Amino acid sequence: MLGYPNKKKPTKQPVNYANLGMTLESDIETTNAYYLSHQIAIIHKKPTPIQVVNVSYPARNKAKITEAYYRTPSTTDFNGIYKGYYIDFDAKETNSKTSFPLSNIHHHQIEHLKDVHQHGGIAFLIVQWKQYNEYYLVTITDLLPWWEGSQKDGRKSIPYHFFKEKGIPIPFSYQPRLDYLKAVDQLLKLQSDFK
Amino acid sequence: MLGYPNKKKPTKQPVNYANLGMTLESDIETTNAYYLSHQIAIIHKKPTPIQVVNVSYPARNKAKITEAYYRTPSTTDFNGIYKGYYIDFDAKETNSKTSFPLSNIHHHQIEHLKDVHQHGGIAFLIVQWKQYNEYYLVTITDLLPWWEGSQKDGRKSIPYHFFKEKGIPIPFSYQPRLDYLKAVDQLLKLQSDFK
Repeated sequence: MLGYPNKKKPTKQPVNYANLGMTLESDIETTNAYYLSHQIAIIHKKPTPIQVVNVSYPARNKAKITEAYYRTPSTTDFNGIYKGYYIDFDAKETNSKTSFPLSNIHHHQIEHLKDVHQHGGIAFLIVQWKQYNEYYLVTITDLLPWWEGSQKDGRKSIPYHFFKEKGIPIPFSYQPRLDYLKAVDQLLKLQSDFK
Repeated sequence: MLGYPNKKKPTKQPVNYANLGMTLESDIETTNAYYLSHQIAIIHKKPTPIQVVNVSYPARNKAKITEAYYRTPSTTDFNGIYKGYYIDFDAKETNSKTSFPLSNIHHHQIEHLKDVHQHGGIAFLIVQWKQYNEYYLVTITDLLPWWEGSQKDGRKSIPYHFFKEKGIPIPFSYQPRLDYLKAVDQLLKLQSDFK
């Protein structure tokens, strides 16, 4: 059984800069692969939902989709299990320096995360502030007042300082790339302290 | 809050036979929609993974995929949360009267379910015996000896009587269509009795 966190000295690792910081999504997928291979957690990205309209069969046993369209996902992109907990989240990036636009989040995603939380799961967003190269985990419980406020007063964004105050920072490193389960550990600790 | 199980007298319900017994997958999706709308559980089918090769833009804001291929899923089709538990399963049908062909199950699906179980999730298959119109929940723990046996001795199927003995029968009815969480409840009860 490998210990966790299993910190290796980064100076001894040959860093492949070619793959660093591609996109938030691929960084999370790389991290998930690390978690899986070290049996830390089983978390996967869901495939992008696609509506298939036409399929042809140019060769035997090989279906070629010739007409299809992207569909709006009905849930979030990532889910799985960690320490027996159901984990569910989405990843968002912003180029802004001051505020996170609420238009980045879909209504059904908020509803889904709310449901997950009510059923005892750990529901959150990972938000990347690209200008600062900072990553935060924000729980649905902390997000919800902003979202509901925006439905009432037309507010369009969440200020950066909210992330500084309420978000849990996620370290970015070599392996795992974006160790968001460290932030989940902090969250679990906060919740158990609170009880 | 609606009670669960929320049995309604089936004679008072206008049954739409047109939608009954379509396919196992759609029956499960209908059931999941019921669970969601009644806030019993949050369980979704993952989209089919598709490798997109070419996309055209015949109109603004409208991407049309013109070349794409189906990919092999790396996990199972269904997952979510129920009573705080992480739930993960796949659905399989067989036309046989005597045995369930192991070729129905992919190696990576077994590995995934094994991982989920080890991390404290509830991992299983739902198997439909079409000739008998019977549905069973079988846990990964019960399946594993058959799977591992097949790797060693080349066994190609699991006999029907195993499902009769070890599977938990799933009732098929009007609403919810295929109430597999009843079988999960039995499983949870068995596990708590065992402790």
